Amino acid sequence: MSRTTLSGRLYEIRPMGKRLAFAVLRCPDREYLCVFPGRPRIAEESVVRLTGTLRATTKSRKFSEEIVVDDYEVTGENTSTTTARMRQLPYSREILTEQHVHMRLPEVHRRLLTKWTAIKAVRDLMENEKYVEVQSPRIVGHMADGPTMKFKVDFFGQEAYLTLSNLLFHTAFAAGDFSSVFEISPLFRADINHSSQHLSEFLILEATAAYRNRDDMIALSDRIVRTVCAHTGAPVADRHLEDVPVVTYEEVLAITAKDEECAPLTRGNRIKRYHARSVARHLGRTLFWVIDMPAAHKAFFSSTRHERLGGNEVEVANDFRLYWDEVDIIDGGERVTSPERLRQRMAEQQLDAEHFGYYLSVLESGLPPLTGFGLGIDRLMAKCMGLGNTRQLVPFPRFVDHLEP
Amino acid sequence: MSRTTLSGRLYEIRPMGKRLAFAVLRCPDREYLCVFPGRPRIAEESVVRLTGTLRATTKSRKFSEEIVVDDYEVTGENTSTTTARMRQLPYSREILTEQHVHMRLPEVHRRLLTKWTAIKAVRDLMENEKYVEVQSPRIVGHMADGPTMKFKVDFFGQEAYLTLSNLLFHTAFAAGDFSSVFEISPLFRADINHSSQHLSEFLILEATAAYRNRDDMIALSDRIVRTVCAHTGAPVADRHLEDVPVVTYEEVLAITAKDEECAPLTRGNRIKRYHARSVARHLGRTLFWVIDMPAAHKAFFSSTRHERLGGNEVEVANDFRLYWDEVDIIDGGERVTSPERLRQRMAEQQLDAEHFGYYLSVLESGLPPLTGFGLGIDRLMAKCMGLGNTRQLVPFPRFVDHLEP
Repeated sequence: MSRTTLSGRLYEIRPMGKRLAFAVLRCPDREYLCVFPGRPRIAEESVVRLTGTLRATTKSRKFSEEIVVDDYEVTGENTSTTTARMRQLPYSREILTEQHVHMRLPEVHRRLLTKWTAIKAVRDLMENEKYVEVQSPRIVGHMADGPTMKFKVDFFGQEAYLTLSNLLFHTAFAAGDFSSVFEISPLFRADINHSSQHLSEFLILEATAAYRNRDDMIALSDRIVRTVCAHTGAPVADRHLEDVPVVTYEEVLAITAKDEECAPLTRGNRIKRYHARSVARHLGRTLFWVIDMPAAHKAFFSSTRHERLGGNEVEVANDFRLYWDEVDIIDGGERVTSPERLRQRMAEQQLDAEHFGYYLSVLESGLPPLTGFGLGIDRLMAKCMGLGNTRQLVPFPRFVDHLEP
Repeated sequence: MSRTTLSGRLYEIRPMGKRLAFAVLRCPDREYLCVFPGRPRIAEESVVRLTGTLRATTKSRKFSEEIVVDDYEVTGENTSTTTARMRQLPYSREILTEQHVHMRLPEVHRRLLTKWTAIKAVRDLMENEKYVEVQSPRIVGHMADGPTMKFKVDFFGQEAYLTLSNLLFHTAFAAGDFSSVFEISPLFRADINHSSQHLSEFLILEATAAYRNRDDMIALSDRIVRTVCAHTGAPVADRHLEDVPVVTYEEVLAITAKDEECAPLTRGNRIKRYHARSVARHLGRTLFWVIDMPAAHKAFFSSTRHERLGGNEVEVANDFRLYWDEVDIIDGGERVTSPERLRQRMAEQQLDAEHFGYYLSVLESGLPPLTGFGLGIDRLMAKCMGLGNTRQLVPFPRFVDHLEP
């Protein structure tokens, strides 16, 4: 038994007749059972400072100690809503305006903590893999050129954009002899998309390595995914995380053609969610890689090659994309390093070569063979935690028509 | 002796007569001395794949092994500039357009690597201190209100801004029972400032802790600064990093009043660089804290108190600011947690309370006592490395009229 003073937020105030009340005090490090002599005049979920006697208890299953309160002070009164009210609401815009209360719910709190500590675990892994986290700008000029919708920024009267990708800068770092770089940072896309998977501002891990090819980067990606799954306790069997199968786009054509439950993929078209589900079913696997996508699907900096497939002369990318069931989590590929080839690719995609003058000069300074990828952190975490909505992992999400708070 | 194939960038090609040439091959993990049979047809700083015999050498002070090359292939030709040319240039806009070559210079390379690995060391420290790295949005609405110049973003036709600070969001996380949070992330300021210290987009460490006061956060800050100094090998004596002195604004008034080499600080005015230098001289210290600044200098969310000082009734902040000689590195303070007091502070600063409706609702949900700070990563690193220009630590800096690359 010892006198003590504790500060924390008070939950679950339960009067037991007139002479006794129980409550739970949540402190930064742990929770305490509180015993009040009579009903305290404290609004649920206020911040309080309690003074009393700490002693062992056998009355509770959850707590081994209780504090018998003889004095208290409310230092931060809750005059607003409570988690009990939050629990009654479906995930909605109403919750988005009460995020600070919503994240007090134990399951929401645990989910966010798991995500954020998993990101640290990924940074530790990347350091062990000898990757260094570099720093690319969020505000960019012509480097944002391309067909993707972007947010405009007024940069001292000049039109600028929020960055769509760090990968072009990572190529510059590779030219500067930083051979293995990554960045966990927010990217921005201004497309009007009402899907619950979609965020206008989203966290991504992008990595680029010199002297590494597609196989090397698939192996690294597999290690990252395994690390995140282990950290988050993802309910996915170990066998799905080992020897993740690799299928070609050509094989996806064949698999979906034979699947009677699924409209077949047509050569040259993009893989839709139901095609990915068909492949997962066919393989009996949760995770799988698709490689050798049509070159026309890939950005101008992607390296490609000609292949004779199914009687057709096709141009395929030296790329790799990880699917977790129907959702693509990682997208990467080997890079064009020849300035001549880059000019061709830009012409094919009708990009203004002048706008990529800097990128071209990076290639002209001599590039090692390069492979890079982007991994959608929120998508991967949502899959690991079995959430249908990636927005639930971002306390202050940004999407069309949602800017506040 | 063993046959080997190595890929890397070739530096310092030195012909020794017609039958021999030396060069240095920089690979991701280390450098090799190369011996060519005759002068190779390779442009300086191209990426090459060499095949030859690896053997021990005693001829070089720097290398214990050399590769005697019998075959080579240029896989990434440098048709652009070289580091030798970079070395001739003063730090200038010309270098900014050749960053990828500039960062090949060993001293530039080492400096960037030191900075980026120091950031990881800070993340590790914060994890040990039980802080969790959270995620605040870069695109904000009314939360950016205030006198600071901000960048406008067109958010689906709505006027939005690039964030000036994460600290208001950190308060929301504290309300959500995340009691110790931080974030290392870019912030944005659109002020037209041509100083070499100034960046429009800059990396900052912001931290907020519940149930922690100014003394606690000064102690944490000291640990962070010591960690960064140790990691970067800053040429600052240990005694400057231990028991960093704390002086009040009132004491700064007195110190500068007595300093004949310095115009005195006038009560109510801001501390200028020459005042800070005067204090450093007076204390005989490189680093020192200034506390109890005039309340009018501080943001609306800063907690303040009345004091009778030098015969005057003054309102001072419960704040703390770290100076490294003349440069302020850290700025922090205890926070207003009472909704009534926050309304007063907003009225004093003529802020539109309606625009901070969300922040007010966070306080109304019950806040623990809170203290937070921001640490300018680039400023601290520049001091640690003895650089006068923080832009040298940011390969793709953003400042007025500088957007590309």
